[in-house]
Amino acid sequence: MFETQEEIPEIKERLHRVGITNLRTIARINWKGKLYTFIPTFEITIDVPEEKKGIHMSRLVESITETMSEAVEEEVKEAHTSLEELGLAVIKRLEGKHPHKRAEVWIKTQLIMERKTPASKKISLETYDVEVGVIKEPGQIEKVLRVKVIGNTACPHAMANNQGKTHIQRAVATLEIRTDYNEEIALEDMIDVVESSFSSPTYTLLKTIDENAVVQNMYSNPKFVEDVAREIIFKAKQKFKGKIHVKVVSHESIHKHDVIAETWY
Amino acid sequence: MFETQEEIPEIKERLHRVGITNLRTIARINWKGKLYTFIPTFEITIDVPEEKKGIHMSRLVESITETMSEAVEEEVKEAHTSLEELGLAVIKRLEGKHPHKRAEVWIKTQLIMERKTPASKKISLETYDVEVGVIKEPGQIEKVLRVKVIGNTACPHAMANNQGKTHIQRAVATLEIRTDYNEEIALEDMIDVVESSFSSPTYTLLKTIDENAVVQNMYSNPKFVEDVAREIIFKAKQKFKGKIHVKVVSHESIHKHDVIAETWY
Amino acid sequence: MFETQEEIPEIKERLHRVGITNLRTIARINWKGKLYTFIPTFEITIDVPEEKKGIHMSRLVESITETMSEAVEEEVKEAHTSLEELGLAVIKRLEGKHPHKRAEVWIKTQLIMERKTPASKKISLETYDVEVGVIKEPGQIEKVLRVKVIGNTACPHAMANNQGKTHIQRAVATLEIRTDYNEEIALEDMIDVVESSFSSPTYTLLKTIDENAVVQNMYSNPKFVEDVAREIIFKAKQKFKGKIHVKVVSHESIHKHDVIAETWY
Amino acid sequence: MFETQEEIPEIKERLHRVGITNLRTIARINWKGKLYTFIPTFEITIDVPEEKKGIHMSRLVESITETMSEAVEEEVKEAHTSLEELGLAVIKRLEGKHPHKRAEVWIKTQLIMERKTPASKKISLETYDVEVGVIKEPGQIEKVLRVKVIGNTACPHAMANNQGKTHIQRAVATLEIRTDYNEEIALEDMIDVVESSFSSPTYTLLKTIDENAVVQNMYSNPKFVEDVAREIIFKAKQKFKGKIHVKVVSHESIHKHDVIAETWY
Repeated sequence: MFETQEEIPEIKERLHRVGITNLRTIARINWKGKLYTFIPTFEITIDVPEEKKGIHMSRLVESITETMSEAVEEEVKEAHTSLEELGLAVIKRLEGKHPHKRAEVWIKTQLIMERKTPASKKISLETYDVEVGVIKEPGQIEKVLRVKVIGNTACPHAMANNQGKTHIQRAVATLEIRTDYNEEIALEDMIDVVESSFSSPTYTLLKTIDENAVVQNMYSNPKFVEDVAREIIFKAKQKFKGKIHVKVVSHESIHKHDVIAETWY
Repeated sequence: MFETQEEIPEIKERLHRVGITNLRTIARINWKGKLYTFIPTFEITIDVPEEKKGIHMSRLVESITETMSEAVEEEVKEAHTSLEELGLAVIKRLEGKHPHKRAEVWIKTQLIMERKTPASKKISLETYDVEVGVIKEPGQIEKVLRVKVIGNTACPHAMANNQGKTHIQRAVATLEIRTDYNEEIALEDMIDVVESSFSSPTYTLLKTIDENAVVQNMYSNPKFVEDVAREIIFKAKQKFKGKIHVKVVSHESIHKHDVIAETWY
Repeated sequence: MFETQEEIPEIKERLHRVGITNLRTIARINWKGKLYTFIPTFEITIDVPEEKKGIHMSRLVESITETMSEAVEEEVKEAHTSLEELGLAVIKRLEGKHPHKRAEVWIKTQLIMERKTPASKKISLETYDVEVGVIKEPGQIEKVLRVKVIGNTACPHAMANNQGKTHIQRAVATLEIRTDYNEEIALEDMIDVVESSFSSPTYTLLKTIDENAVVQNMYSNPKFVEDVAREIIFKAKQKFKGKIHVKVVSHESIHKHDVIAETWY
Repeated sequence: MFETQEEIPEIKERLHRVGITNLRTIARINWKGKLYTFIPTFEITIDVPEEKKGIHMSRLVESITETMSEAVEEEVKEAHTSLEELGLAVIKRLEGKHPHKRAEVWIKTQLIMERKTPASKKISLETYDVEVGVIKEPGQIEKVLRVKVIGNTACPHAMANNQGKTHIQRAVATLEIRTDYNEEIALEDMIDVVESSFSSPTYTLLKTIDENAVVQNMYSNPKFVEDVAREIIFKAKQKFKGKIHVKVVSHESIHKHDVIAETWY
C-alpha cells in the first residue's frame, strides 16, 4: 500500500489549514445536567509542513467520530459539558493519531433557549445559530465563540420626522469572541447580550397581548443599526474578556438592500 | 468512438427531463430598442425514451451557446426581444441537433427598472429576480413567467390594537403565470402588479422626504400577508390570461420565523 | 381588543395556504424504541375562506409548540414514532384551535443512519436530509415523504472512449413519494433505494482499504445521471405505493455546470 | 426636519464599518475597449466617530448610483476600465458627500472569459465569480481582489493504490490578493493562475474528443487538494505583489463532506 501523503511534494509550501469541512454528524452534550443530542457541522484542520505532500484525512474523521461515539456510549455523564470541551476532546484524540503543530476544530449548531413572553409570560422556545472554534497553536489554546441572534430595529430618524411613525424591520446580529480556551464564557450569556440590544427581542409564540407589548417595546426603543452595534460591543466589553467582533445587518423594510454596522475591539 | 448514449439501457423507464442545469453564460437582448447584456443561469432539458440510455449533453450546451453567440454577433438588432424569444430560439436550434418529444428551457436573470421616488421624484433603479421557462410538448408550446419582488407589510391587527402603532417588515412576493407561448405578457407588468400590492413599494434611493412618504404610505395601507396575496391574484386575473400562482413571504420583525400566504388559479 | 382577522376583506379571494414557515423548534421522537432529539424546521398552513381577512397565526405556533412540549414532557414513550405521526398530531391539535378545510404540516430535518464501510466493516454514521408533509383535505389525509442522498456517478461514455478512464463526480438524488397517510413507508427504506442506485454509496469514514473498495465499485458501475434516475424509479415503483418523483443532479467534474435527470410516475 | 444621525449617542463607541450591503444595481465598464454591462452587488461602508449617532445612508447610495449613471451616460469611453477604478470613483464621490476617515467599497460580480477547448479548439465561454474591494484609510488606499474558479482533483493516493483508478471530483478554489491600490493585477491573470493549478480546467462546452482530452488530463495530473493550494500560492507569489490568501475546497465524490486546504502569505 502506498502512503502518497508521506511523499515530498514537488512544490514546497507550508499549508496552514488542511482537513475536513461540512461534515455533519451526531453529537451529545451534558448541558447543566441535561443530555442534548444534535447534528452539528464540523470543520477540522491541521497544518502541513513543507516536506509532506498531504495529510491522512481519515484520521481527522476518526478523531471526530470516536469522540462522538465515546460521548454517546458513556452517556456523557461527566465529560463534554460544552461545545468547546467537545472540540478540545477531538483535538486531544487527534494528537495521538496525526502529527501537527497547529489544529483547529469548528462546530456549528443551534441552541434552544427558553424565554418568557413579555405579557402573558408563556414559555417560548427560541433557537439560535452558534459556532465554536478551538484553535491549538504551539504553547497556546484559544477558542472562538459566535452567536447569531434575530431581532429588530425601529428607525429613530424616521420616527423623529413622522410624529412617532417609523419603519421597522428584522435585523440579525452576530457577536464573536476570541479568547483563551480557559476563559469561562457561556454562549447563553452572549446571546442575552445581543438579544437585549435590539429595539425588541423576538419570540416564536406571541398571543395578542404579547404582540402588543413587543410593538410598544419597539416604539419605545427606536434604534439605528449603529445603536444596536454600539450597545452589543459596550455590554460585551464589560462582561467578556477577549477580542470582540460585532456585526449587525438590518433587512430594511423600505429598501431592497440591507444596512450594516460592524465594529471590533 | 463509442456512442454509449445510443445503447439500450438495462432498466427501461422513460425520463421526462434530462439535461443541463446551473449553466451561466452571457446573453444579449434588444429590449424596446436598447441592447442589454446580462449573465443568466440556464436549465435546458429534453425527454429520453425507454430504449435510449442517455442524451448527448454537449448538443444542449451548443444550442445555448450558438444562440447566444449568434445574438452577440448580430448585435441582436431584430431578434430576441424577450427572454422567452431567446428560450424558443434555443429550442428551435436544439430541434436540428437532438431528437426529442418535449423540451424545456429555463432562463433566470435580473431585470432593472426605473422608478421615481414618491416625494423628491428622483430616479431610483430597482432590480428584480425573474425567470422564464419555455416548454415544448407535442403540438403545444407554453411559457412560464416568474417575477420576485421585495416590498413590505404593516400589520393591521397590531395597528388596530396599538392606537396606530404596528409591526412592519420586509416581505417578498412571487407571481408566476403559465400560459400559451404566444400570449403577450410583459415581465414589467407582472412586477408592477406585485409591487403595487404591498403596504408600500421599496426603493434603492430614498432622501428624507421620500423616506417620510414611504413611512406614511405603509401606515395608510396596513396589510396582512393574506391581503397582499389576495390583491396580487385579483389584479393578475384581470390583466393576464393563464394559470396564476402567488406566494408571499413576510420576514416578521417580531418573530424569528416567516409567515406565508399562497394561492393559485 | 380587535380581531382584525375575522373582518371581511375588501378583495374576496380564497387562499389555499396561509401560515407559518421557517420555524425551527425542538422535537423528540421515539424511533424504534430509542429517543431522538432534533431541531427541525416547520411549515404549517391552513386555507382561508373568501369572507375572512386573515388567520390567527399564534394558534398555528401553539399547535406546534404544545405538540412538541407534550412530546418532550411525556418522554414520548408511546406516541410519535415517525415524523408523519408528529405532523398529524400537530394537525389534530390545530383542529380544536382554528377552523379550516385543509391543513398542511411540513417537517424538514436530518436522519442519521449507521452504515458499514465496504472493506474494513467499520461503522460510519451517515446523515441525510429528509422532509415529511402531512396534507389534510376534506375526507382525506395524504403524506409526502422526501429524502435527499449524496452519491456519485462515473461516466460510462467517457469510460468506453478512454480505455477504462472516466470522469467521476459527486451527485445528489431526491426521491419523493406522495401517498395515503396510512401507507407504511420508512424513510430509511427510501434512502436505501436511492443510495444503492449510484455508481457507489459514499461514506463519512473510509480507511485506505475502504477507499479502494469504493473506487473499484465506482469503476464497476459506470452510470449516467439518467441511469441513476431510472434505477431509483424502477426500485421505488416496486417497493412503494404512491406518486413517485425522482430528481438526480450530478456536479460534473469536467464542467462548471451540473447535469440533471428527472422523472415521475 | 430632524437629523437624528448628527446627535450624540448615549453609548460612545467608534464603529469601523457602517453602511449599505447587498445592493444590486447596474454597472458598465470599458474593458479593453469593449463595453460590458452587468448587475453587481455592492457593499459600501464608512466609519462613525464616537460622538455621532449614525450615518446618512442615502448619501452612500447616491455615491453608487451617481457614479453608475455617470458611467452609463458617458458611455464610459475613458473612465472605469476596471472594477477597482469603479470602486474608487464611488469613494471619491462619497468624499464630497459624507465626512469619514475610512471608507470601503466592495463589488461582487461575474467575469466571462473565452477559452479554447483542449482538442476541437472550439470557443467555450466560461464564467467566474469575482469580488473587488477598495479600502481607503488615512494616507493609504488598498484593494482586495478575489477570484473563485471551478476545477477538479483526481486523488493521487487512490490512484497509487488502485492501478491507476482513482476518485475524481469537482473542486472550487479562491485566490485573494490584498495590495496597494496602484499595483496592477488583472483578475484574468489571477483566474489563469488558479485554473491552471487543478488536475484539469473545466469547460462549458466539450465535444467527445474534448471530453477525452480532459479525462486524460485529469489522470495525468493527479492532485490532492493540498497540491492545488500549493501550486496556486507558489505561482501567485511569483506573479503578484501583496498579501495572498488561497483556499481550495474539494467536493469529494467518495464522501458526503468536503476537504479543504488553505494557506496565506
